[in-house]
Amino acid sequence: MRHPDVPESLEGWWILHRMFAFDRLAWDELPEDQRKEIVRQATAAFEPLKTGQDTDVSLAQMIGHKADLMLTHYSKTFEGLSHAQTVVDKLRLSEYLTPSTSYVSVLELGLYDATGKIHAALAEKGLKPNSQEWITEFDEMVQAQQHVPHNSGRLWARVPQRRFVCFYPMDKKRGEDVNWYMLPFADRSRLMLDHGKIGRTYHGQVTQVISGSIGFDNFEWGVDLYADDPMVFKKLIYEMRFDEASAKYGHFGDFYAGVQFSLDQLQTALDGTAVPALNVLQPA
Amino acid sequence: MRHPDVPESLEGWWILHRMFAFDRLAWDELPEDQRKEIVRQATAAFEPLKTGQDTDVSLAQMIGHKADLMLTHYSKTFEGLSHAQTVVDKLRLSEYLTPSTSYVSVLELGLYDATGKIHAALAEKGLKPNSQEWITEFDEMVQAQQHVPHNSGRLWARVPQRRFVCFYPMDKKRGEDVNWYMLPFADRSRLMLDHGKIGRTYHGQVTQVISGSIGFDNFEWGVDLYADDPMVFKKLIYEMRFDEASAKYGHFGDFYAGVQFSLDQLQTALDGTAVPALNVLQPA
Amino acid sequence: MRHPDVPESLEGWWILHRMFAFDRLAWDELPEDQRKEIVRQATAAFEPLKTGQDTDVSLAQMIGHKADLMLTHYSKTFEGLSHAQTVVDKLRLSEYLTPSTSYVSVLELGLYDATGKIHAALAEKGLKPNSQEWITEFDEMVQAQQHVPHNSGRLWARVPQRRFVCFYPMDKKRGEDVNWYMLPFADRSRLMLDHGKIGRTYHGQVTQVISGSIGFDNFEWGVDLYADDPMVFKKLIYEMRFDEASAKYGHFGDFYAGVQFSLDQLQTALDGTAVPALNVLQPA
Amino acid sequence: MRHPDVPESLEGWWILHRMFAFDRLAWDELPEDQRKEIVRQATAAFEPLKTGQDTDVSLAQMIGHKADLMLTHYSKTFEGLSHAQTVVDKLRLSEYLTPSTSYVSVLELGLYDATGKIHAALAEKGLKPNSQEWITEFDEMVQAQQHVPHNSGRLWARVPQRRFVCFYPMDKKRGEDVNWYMLPFADRSRLMLDHGKIGRTYHGQVTQVISGSIGFDNFEWGVDLYADDPMVFKKLIYEMRFDEASAKYGHFGDFYAGVQFSLDQLQTALDGTAVPALNVLQPA
Amino acid sequence: MRHPDVPESLEGWWILHRMFAFDRLAWDELPEDQRKEIVRQATAAFEPLKTGQDTDVSLAQMIGHKADLMLTHYSKTFEGLSHAQTVVDKLRLSEYLTPSTSYVSVLELGLYDATGKIHAALAEKGLKPNSQEWITEFDEMVQAQQHVPHNSGRLWARVPQRRFVCFYPMDKKRGEDVNWYMLPFADRSRLMLDHGKIGRTYHGQVTQVISGSIGFDNFEWGVDLYADDPMVFKKLIYEMRFDEASAKYGHFGDFYAGVQFSLDQLQTALDGTAVPALNVLQPA
Repeated sequence: MRHPDVPESLEGWWILHRMFAFDRLAWDELPEDQRKEIVRQATAAFEPLKTGQDTDVSLAQMIGHKADLMLTHYSKTFEGLSHAQTVVDKLRLSEYLTPSTSYVSVLELGLYDATGKIHAALAEKGLKPNSQEWITEFDEMVQAQQHVPHNSGRLWARVPQRRFVCFYPMDKKRGEDVNWYMLPFADRSRLMLDHGKIGRTYHGQVTQVISGSIGFDNFEWGVDLYADDPMVFKKLIYEMRFDEASAKYGHFGDFYAGVQFSLDQLQTALDGTAVPALNVLQPA
Repeated sequence: MRHPDVPESLEGWWILHRMFAFDRLAWDELPEDQRKEIVRQATAAFEPLKTGQDTDVSLAQMIGHKADLMLTHYSKTFEGLSHAQTVVDKLRLSEYLTPSTSYVSVLELGLYDATGKIHAALAEKGLKPNSQEWITEFDEMVQAQQHVPHNSGRLWARVPQRRFVCFYPMDKKRGEDVNWYMLPFADRSRLMLDHGKIGRTYHGQVTQVISGSIGFDNFEWGVDLYADDPMVFKKLIYEMRFDEASAKYGHFGDFYAGVQFSLDQLQTALDGTAVPALNVLQPA
Repeated sequence: MRHPDVPESLEGWWILHRMFAFDRLAWDELPEDQRKEIVRQATAAFEPLKTGQDTDVSLAQMIGHKADLMLTHYSKTFEGLSHAQTVVDKLRLSEYLTPSTSYVSVLELGLYDATGKIHAALAEKGLKPNSQEWITEFDEMVQAQQHVPHNSGRLWARVPQRRFVCFYPMDKKRGEDVNWYMLPFADRSRLMLDHGKIGRTYHGQVTQVISGSIGFDNFEWGVDLYADDPMVFKKLIYEMRFDEASAKYGHFGDFYAGVQFSLDQLQTALDGTAVPALNVLQPA
Repeated sequence: MRHPDVPESLEGWWILHRMFAFDRLAWDELPEDQRKEIVRQATAAFEPLKTGQDTDVSLAQMIGHKADLMLTHYSKTFEGLSHAQTVVDKLRLSEYLTPSTSYVSVLELGLYDATGKIHAALAEKGLKPNSQEWITEFDEMVQAQQHVPHNSGRLWARVPQRRFVCFYPMDKKRGEDVNWYMLPFADRSRLMLDHGKIGRTYHGQVTQVISGSIGFDNFEWGVDLYADDPMVFKKLIYEMRFDEASAKYGHFGDFYAGVQFSLDQLQTALDGTAVPALNVLQPA
Repeated sequence: MRHPDVPESLEGWWILHRMFAFDRLAWDELPEDQRKEIVRQATAAFEPLKTGQDTDVSLAQMIGHKADLMLTHYSKTFEGLSHAQTVVDKLRLSEYLTPSTSYVSVLELGLYDATGKIHAALAEKGLKPNSQEWITEFDEMVQAQQHVPHNSGRLWARVPQRRFVCFYPMDKKRGEDVNWYMLPFADRSRLMLDHGKIGRTYHGQVTQVISGSIGFDNFEWGVDLYADDPMVFKKLIYEMRFDEASAKYGHFGDFYAGVQFSLDQLQTALDGTAVPALNVLQPA
């Protein structure tokens, strides 16, 4: 909390990514009415997960052997992720899905810059660090960040409905010499600022969702990128790779890429009659 | 034992974590009476493991593909872990469970600070290190630590009954330059002290159980965290990651997170009718 | 884009490599007419993928346990890869194929040298870096590279029809001291130039296809080599391994090697009556 | 050999560790008479492997998912290991066992200290290193070590019959800076001597069997520890971890721990009616 | 080729190692006549692979869980390896074999010493490096090495028929500081010379086959050792491990060890009636 080296963060949606292999041959052997019935049941189960106030879910058809289908669940509670997982596992559709991997995290807005500014503001006020007064003001100022419009919108934004999705987990390196967690706060803050600048040059082209997974899964963060042109993923990540925060300190897990599709395209996706479309609906 | 570099420790419960995949679809195909009968059999088998003087067991529904169910067994003997494992494997329920991983360890209270103080006290008495007299007094003083109230309660405390659980194994790094085991005792003792201070700022919010697994499993320690708010896991571990003991010397295995539930909620958990509750009973 | 450390690149075909184990025994148990019918269906599906303007596909029989069959799909769109994957997965042939691995990438022409020259040219013109005028001219000069004959032919060349194929993914190292991404642009440019010179001494003996996979798959690049003599793969890669760009900075994934064959040899390949031939057709 | 950097060693039993998963549910479904018959067949096969002059075998029930059963085979010939493996694989019992891992090695007594003394003795005699005379005397002095009582008993001792067993493989590190194999002989000899001293403080509490596996399996050595109290494994290995030979140079594989049991307890172990006992028989 | 850092090499047989698990229980359930018929079919298929001018094959029963059976195929063409793989996969025997791993390589005689001498000889002649004249003479002198008796016999020697076999793949390290490929040619040449000297002290005791796999498989080289006494593998490799070429620069993959057997012992090997013998036939 008030450890001087630790940047504060704000948390929004709990997130569960689930990747599945799909047994297309077994599916294709089912008669049409059964396929329709299974899709009808799945759609009915996904519908409330997608339209509820407290949850969201997005579907994507992935490319390559690592996954055929990716579900991205959002929930306002951790238990809600457990609920969503059970709901999907109970579907008849699950007979044709084999979980290959998954990722548990929580949407996170890092506050490196704000944390530094709050520290400075409190110092200027002459408050003694970690005194009761300092703590009270510090906590208030961090919480106030939730209401900064730039932040509040991002904490509870629904899964971005852009055609292409790229997901990967990442760590900051803790090598023998190159160790992110041994850097002074000010250095990390500056590196994150530079890192963010690259992201901003892609503003409009890509929507980025960062989630924290320390304590929940094997890497420290999950990164989702959403774009209308998949080439943007490569251009953005490659450019960032030359940025010191990534070049020296980034350690990346497996990369997953695919095409998002609308729930009403589930039959198309499973039947494989076409690459399923993403029909972005206007909010009601 | 009396190797000057080795901190003493006290040991309590033997611990076996078992993670399983649950075949929910096969379960759901069973008629209700069979599901009830299997749960009845399992409950009858878990009951003595949970309420006996010499054993405990806790159940948790996990999130993600790494495990659906985690059992945490406590036993006063190593053979008791073997017994508990066999009891579970013989259940009809096991037909629907596939072991994915496990962890064997023993609850451990590290005595870095106390060991250093005992060394100092004996030196002050003018005893020659590792002389017969020195050894006798040293052993007595270490054993006496068992009866320090802060310790005795923790050695044999039952599995903490808080809603959320996080488990991960860890090592201290033995890199080419950064090598915990080559640090002087005093440096390690100081780092552990600082590390503990962070934990204490979370007092009340999280219950931590450390177990040693050298000689029993692939990492050196297992860490269980229990809390009423899962966000605490992320905040605590992230804060600790900036602490030198973790930042430089911590090496972590896979992270598992889930919701604990009561034995009387086993039917609910398996049937998936709701996220199973944790009904914490008052001790009799 | 105009980050001074980032070399520009041109992109052509989207590429999907798919590796499969083939269940030869189960295949051999099929009566001849069924084997013929399955091959007929597969051939009919591969035909448009192979001869279309917007796609290509090549088949190879691989050696060793890592894969029996490799498909190399080319597509002008990312969604086209998804389409090709679905088409193959729906084939009755797929009953005898188990995906073992895959690789998602996009054909890429690196422009280290050209990027440096454009930077220099714009500096000579006295344009202020990243000024609007600079950006406009920079982008035009990069796009113009597409029309340099040496480049345009390579961006959209079809899968080289040479007898032997070797595929492997690779990264540039980001070690604690040896970190490609922390090198100055000029050093990287020079190393790539030297690296390219070795390749050129093998001109005519080997056809090389480099594809970028950042954001799409686990390594940064995929490398396909095609030759009429498989020994060339070893000679070329070994010679490059002494080149600083590879020796210090190359990190390689699994290597796959095999023999390419024509679509009309699919029956031969599956029946195992002979090593299937590669009948290179003249362009119509 | 007579390479001045290489310590001599004496070799005894060839050793094969085999770890298996046991399908307890399938076993439990067998009628009692079939279970008895399978145990009878297995016991009859194990009996000569256990009581023969040229072989031994020990059984252990393991804890955790890595293995349910471990067999430790000893043989006076390498081919004898192959024979023992085939004998077990042909048992009806094997229908319920799935091999998970194994380890091939040969019991080894390291002669760091003796090798150094022999070198010194020959130098004192004024013999020219690697002269014919030097070689003859060197080989005689090494072979004479076989008859030193402390050694001869250990080379051909049968599998220690103590209740608990711990097995792990290990390497000496060959890092970029920390490289055991680049240390001078005298330094390695001194480190091994210190390392051995810790072991000796556990004399009586633990029986240690070191086996060499270079050329036979993936690590350089296998370590078996046997004790009447499993806590001794943790105390001993942890204490050794602070010793320079382990702290800097030790690299460890997976750890396996379990309870040994007598062959006449096989039915109990498989039926899971109790934790099977270890009835240590007096030698006839 | 003529890159001054790259040692030349001569290539002989293409080599495919295949490791299989053998389903002994399923085999044992077959009636005797079927087992005989399957062995008859397999023997008939192996016979030409073993006795042909252009191919060879050797069989070995392996110890431990990594493989039960290893086939070592030699072929004068790369496509011949593909043919041999298909021939085996089509056998009814393959129903009882599951491929676990494999290795693709080509027998290689390294010419460090000769390359250096050729460079020196050409320099002495006053030829300009990489001039047309220099290249012509260089290539002739390298090719002439094929006819040096010591080399020609080894390039096309058949699989050594000694009782015991040990196989492992290896790389030369490319660490941040310790990087074989950044060493000057002269240093590598000297290290290889020293390395070879150890091998020569085992002359007669062990037959070594080195094969190159760059471009064909995941490591750079495969090493096969053949001996009449398996202990020699350990003694030789351990002694080499102290040699700088291995100690600093060697990186090893999995080790496989077993007993070779004659084709006429296939029934014995599969039936498990005895450890199959190696009947070394005199060349006709």
